[in-house]
Amino acid sequence: MKQIFIVLGMLFMVISCKTTTKDSYQGDEAASPDEMLIRISEIKIHQAYLSEYISILKEEAEASVRLEPGVISIFPMFQMEDSTEFRILEIYRNKEAYESHLKTPHFKKYKTTTLDMVESLKLTDMEAIDEETMPDIFLKLRSVVTVQ
Amino acid sequence: MKQIFIVLGMLFMVISCKTTTKDSYQGDEAASPDEMLIRISEIKIHQAYLSEYISILKEEAEASVRLEPGVISIFPMFQMEDSTEFRILEIYRNKEAYESHLKTPHFKKYKTTTLDMVESLKLTDMEAIDEETMPDIFLKLRSVVTVQ
Repeated sequence: MKQIFIVLGMLFMVISCKTTTKDSYQGDEAASPDEMLIRISEIKIHQAYLSEYISILKEEAEASVRLEPGVISIFPMFQMEDSTEFRILEIYRNKEAYESHLKTPHFKKYKTTTLDMVESLKLTDMEAIDEETMPDIFLKLRSVVTVQ
Repeated sequence: MKQIFIVLGMLFMVISCKTTTKDSYQGDEAASPDEMLIRISEIKIHQAYLSEYISILKEEAEASVRLEPGVISIFPMFQMEDSTEFRILEIYRNKEAYESHLKTPHFKKYKTTTLDMVESLKLTDMEAIDEETMPDIFLKLRSVVTVQ
């Protein structure tokens, strides 16, 4: 009889451990995908400032994702055929998170220091066509980046 | 003495359980971000086929991410100001994964059934400027999508 309780206790510990690990990804700042702001920024940079711009953008994107719970993604890329052509996939938890982002010291620093480097800038608001598949995508992305 | 072994056994189970849960995100198909293929596809669709196209694209993207270990992201969006303008962020684990994707029944079905719906198509290969921040982004995305 005592052994049954020990086995049940172990089972309970395993189940609660799994639940805790899963829940830890949800965080305190959970929000609905319906409220998300998705944007693709298209930015052309003057050739002379290229390496300087990359350094400043990298710092700003990293700080935003790390420090702001409402900034879900600031994912900067450049075109392989023309490295002066940048595209940034930006995802904010909601409108308030975006407005709050604009007031942060790291965004203000990025904006002022890169002002003269930018040749053209186009911001395009987007809508995702399938939020249901998002969990699978992000699970897979984690599997790639965690092996570094 | 027997109780000590039971406690040690429980501790071992909890530790191994946590390790298993963490490792399960890495999968068998782990690869370096350096090998990844990142692309933004820009697709304009004839207005008349819009809802039909969305339905086919959604099905294809979902099947690709679910069935193909090498397809990390096929994340389709459309412009809020012009819903005939689609942008897809595609991330493949490596070149082989992309080539294998082109041979799948779901991609072939998408390609043939949408051929006449497409007004223009531009595929642009991209490079990410900061792979180190990716884990934070994808952790945050998971926290949003798992609350649905």
